[in-house]
Amino acid sequence: MSKLRFEISMSLDGFTAGPDPTEEEPLGKGGEQLHEWVIKLAAWREPHGREGGEVNASTEPFEESLANTGAVIMGRNMFGGGPGPWGEEPWEGWWGDEPPFHCPVFVLTHHEREPLHKQGTTFTFVTDGPESALEQAREASGGKDISLGGGANAAQQYLAAGLIDELNLNVVPVLLGSGTRLFDNLDGDGVQPELVRVIDAPGVTHLRYRFVR
Amino acid sequence: MSKLRFEISMSLDGFTAGPDPTEEEPLGKGGEQLHEWVIKLAAWREPHGREGGEVNASTEPFEESLANTGAVIMGRNMFGGGPGPWGEEPWEGWWGDEPPFHCPVFVLTHHEREPLHKQGTTFTFVTDGPESALEQAREASGGKDISLGGGANAAQQYLAAGLIDELNLNVVPVLLGSGTRLFDNLDGDGVQPELVRVIDAPGVTHLRYRFVR
Repeated sequence: MSKLRFEISMSLDGFTAGPDPTEEEPLGKGGEQLHEWVIKLAAWREPHGREGGEVNASTEPFEESLANTGAVIMGRNMFGGGPGPWGEEPWEGWWGDEPPFHCPVFVLTHHEREPLHKQGTTFTFVTDGPESALEQAREASGGKDISLGGGANAAQQYLAAGLIDELNLNVVPVLLGSGTRLFDNLDGDGVQPELVRVIDAPGVTHLRYRFVR
Repeated sequence: MSKLRFEISMSLDGFTAGPDPTEEEPLGKGGEQLHEWVIKLAAWREPHGREGGEVNASTEPFEESLANTGAVIMGRNMFGGGPGPWGEEPWEGWWGDEPPFHCPVFVLTHHEREPLHKQGTTFTFVTDGPESALEQAREASGGKDISLGGGANAAQQYLAAGLIDELNLNVVPVLLGSGTRLFDNLDGDGVQPELVRVIDAPGVTHLRYRFVR
């Protein structure tokens, strides 16, 4: 069966975004540093229409994460922030006319909305919870893996429910001090992780954990 | 100059002890799991008077941490818990008649107390702050490194003050859910870490970071 994989970059002190996000700094103060390792990869730059970039020890795990993804699940903020209902002329999110996913995307939200069709990607809005989103994603994934894109809040719901099969944690050597904590609002009674791979790459350590139920 | 090294075991979700510590479970619920990797090492068992044990990828970093230590700094709780003054018949701590340190130990406390002499180890109680403790430890270390033993509160004071030269973080694949967070009460403006070594060992990942001022 297709796995639910969760991939995220986290500071050494446990944050997936820094404090005080603004329009200029949506990842909060210092948060951009969490993604420097990926933005410098040729494997990331090419599909994002940018030239150059490096091939290094991060290339393989990054390419793996793209290769076998048949559907994506994300939280409302990752689709396109802000609380409350969608409104009469709902905003179309962060992702532009050709989102980088090229597969079905399921957005967790409390507010119903018709699916949004973009080039190569359809966003489906799921209001009946994470398990339902996972079920729909699994049906749409064609047997490939499902990638949980974040943010932290969505991830915590899936972690707490024991639904994640594989966690790919990219630990960046920076102390942000505050911001959005990845591991929060959990209890210690859930499914436990097992380390399966470590890759030491420039500016990041890739840790892969498996959750066995 | 001798380095200030900080060595600690942390759960994947960032805790150095679990919730609800009791006399039976001083490391809180689930907290013992953080130290399983070291207790099974022959290199740990032999000096603790226990037989058997493994030689594995943790042996080298564990032996390194012992080899070059000339003095130890620890918080009051790590010496022997409980708040408040020492009292008329002060408790002698967790460490027994022959503490495992075999070098001068400096204990951060708000309450003055005469030094406590044990076999091979003298505990000196420092009431004028972490920088003073570091100065005294450095003088007593004979040019060797100083090891910051923890707990989290003492570590946070040294991290916030930018006084740690090397962090050896032993990440254990367990989610405790709550407890004592290592990285807390910091701001993101301090000295930043740089990863210098990764060792993938049974039941633990050893990450070494250097702080460069």
